Amino acid sequence: MRKIEAVDFFYVSMPLVTTEGDGSQDALLVRVAAGGVEGWGECEASPLVSIVAFVCPMSHGACRPVGASVLGQRLESPEDIYRIASQIELDSMDLLQAPHTWSGVEIALWDLLGKVREEPVWKLLGYRESFRKLPYASQLFGDTPAHTYQQATEACRQNFRAVKFGWGPIGRGDLKTDLEHFAAAREGLGKGSLLMVDVGQIFGDNVEAAAARLPMLEQVGAIWLEEPFHTSALDAYSSLSRRGRVKLAGGEGAHNFYMARHLIDYGGVGYIQVDCGRIGGIGPAKRVADYAVSKGVTFVNHTFTSHLALSASLQPYAGLRSHEICEYPFAPKPLAREVTSNHLERDKEGYVALPNLPGLGIELDTQAIRRYFVPVEIKLKGDILFKSSDGF
Amino acid sequence: MRKIEAVDFFYVSMPLVTTEGDGSQDALLVRVAAGGVEGWGECEASPLVSIVAFVCPMSHGACRPVGASVLGQRLESPEDIYRIASQIELDSMDLLQAPHTWSGVEIALWDLLGKVREEPVWKLLGYRESFRKLPYASQLFGDTPAHTYQQATEACRQNFRAVKFGWGPIGRGDLKTDLEHFAAAREGLGKGSLLMVDVGQIFGDNVEAAAARLPMLEQVGAIWLEEPFHTSALDAYSSLSRRGRVKLAGGEGAHNFYMARHLIDYGGVGYIQVDCGRIGGIGPAKRVADYAVSKGVTFVNHTFTSHLALSASLQPYAGLRSHEICEYPFAPKPLAREVTSNHLERDKEGYVALPNLPGLGIELDTQAIRRYFVPVEIKLKGDILFKSSDGF
Repeated sequence: MRKIEAVDFFYVSMPLVTTEGDGSQDALLVRVAAGGVEGWGECEASPLVSIVAFVCPMSHGACRPVGASVLGQRLESPEDIYRIASQIELDSMDLLQAPHTWSGVEIALWDLLGKVREEPVWKLLGYRESFRKLPYASQLFGDTPAHTYQQATEACRQNFRAVKFGWGPIGRGDLKTDLEHFAAAREGLGKGSLLMVDVGQIFGDNVEAAAARLPMLEQVGAIWLEEPFHTSALDAYSSLSRRGRVKLAGGEGAHNFYMARHLIDYGGVGYIQVDCGRIGGIGPAKRVADYAVSKGVTFVNHTFTSHLALSASLQPYAGLRSHEICEYPFAPKPLAREVTSNHLERDKEGYVALPNLPGLGIELDTQAIRRYFVPVEIKLKGDILFKSSDGF
Repeated sequence: MRKIEAVDFFYVSMPLVTTEGDGSQDALLVRVAAGGVEGWGECEASPLVSIVAFVCPMSHGACRPVGASVLGQRLESPEDIYRIASQIELDSMDLLQAPHTWSGVEIALWDLLGKVREEPVWKLLGYRESFRKLPYASQLFGDTPAHTYQQATEACRQNFRAVKFGWGPIGRGDLKTDLEHFAAAREGLGKGSLLMVDVGQIFGDNVEAAAARLPMLEQVGAIWLEEPFHTSALDAYSSLSRRGRVKLAGGEGAHNFYMARHLIDYGGVGYIQVDCGRIGGIGPAKRVADYAVSKGVTFVNHTFTSHLALSASLQPYAGLRSHEICEYPFAPKPLAREVTSNHLERDKEGYVALPNLPGLGIELDTQAIRRYFVPVEIKLKGDILFKSSDGF
């Protein structure tokens, strides 16, 4: 019987991490070993905190470290992954960080199982075919409308047929400047490209502030307005969704299936965006994709880091032909590009396809991981609780 | 101008932590210093992970450590606490553990502000009066119905007029045994006492399994059924709330105002239970209390640790006379009792009142903290990132 023998964490970081809204400045890679086979996954956000949630001392029966539910467990089939996930839901119920930690481990388990069965993960999920996706360039608004215009033309030049602008100045200055940014984005893209706008929760739950931007977003033909509010501000989402024709998008903050479902059921989003590195991995993401289909909502991945994370994030909706758009890191930091040896490159028409390879189909570059490796050592009462190693 | 100069964490733990569902086996105490005054707070659950979320390296602009939004900030009024909370919501948006960490710090800030103004926290929250509460003894179901009966008689003997039984065997064996436990609890309590039942999310989102327990819960006069499902399984809560006369209770897992609100709006709970050590502290808990009042729902604290946490958890609804029930750790581990010098003792009629003292009105016992202290040292790249000290 195949058992999970080891889980190793590789915290990698750029030498300098800045306050820009760029999630590719660090990463937490996870390697799982079982019966002579390895799988790799990636956790989104705050590597050190996620490591600690795997190794911390138990606080009580419903607040155990994630590791307690993983190490030594049987791993023969997808059902084993679901079983471990259920156990973590109960045994790490009070450990808030647990879903982020588990996400990377879960992804690695799918990768491992795919390698054992010599099948891509999307086949293990029940899809017969994997359809190529239309990547949108994900980038920040410029500091000025002129800068935003420049960014838009640059994305076009690089053969992107869809571009998302996010964060930056939007909602932080006056309405007029925001509208100028929206207009500059469209002008730079020209008529043929898809335009999305992401405002990074800047309006909290202020529906009027967000609604003031809707007419201009309609005018420039934005296909969605992303994260106008706090992930949990369902009432605000619901109100705004009824105020205009621009569809709302959200869900990257969901750390379980239910939170994504609520954005559909109660928030009225038209696009549900799921980050496999946060929601608990590929299993719950697939469950969201199934639910989205049943509700006529479009599934989109959320990915801002490596191509390992990108491959993981596309698996849950690989077989959904009409859910065509995908997020694609436009200009990630060198780290995010270099930690994998192969990449999901765009074809001549600008599309991207999942590899027809076992597991996630992504090879890690251990030399690159070593270059960016951040060694961690944690002592409790003078004894070593955790010490990471970049030995492969 | 008063500024937050220091935030210190004190991780305390029983020498042996077991898998029983008893949250008083460890604790994370937080001391904040500003302008020569100290305040104390407590974070619920997984001390080590919460410490790390305060000191970890930034991952990007929306994934900064909690400490970055706290240290050096102005602290003159409640508005300053709300302002810091809003900043954390944006700047630590992607750091899942952040609300648990911030909760303890936030509580300490209210305590500190109360001491500066020489007023109890409930007055700072706008209440003119603090009403005494009826504590229920919070304890686990026995291993057998006979054991449950014994526990019930013991709680009565100790002058509790309300008793909540939780977790243990419920939902893990057959229906018949569960019903026997419910009956044994009522039999042990006699007719005069309030009985509540807490099943610790055991049914996931299986409405039928939970509904099968409703008739017996009605028969024994349980005033609420607590946490039948995952905190986020709103649809299951909603379905079950329409299936019987027993009111549902939940909310301890809420790590922001919205999650508690959703249990009211979409889940149909009759009692909303808030843990100040998780929801982001006293401010968001007060917001839930106000919302509960507006919706005819009853607010109840969730507390399973020290009397510092207990005092914090009662402040948000101290002025709500008709929201009378409160959770009261029945038999906490010695640690939870010993870390504070004074306690919220029950009066002759079995009620408990908040002290009319500045802040939370609770003194810490530094000797006891030293006895249970767990020293933590974290190194990144060989350099010390965090090292705790029990020096006072």
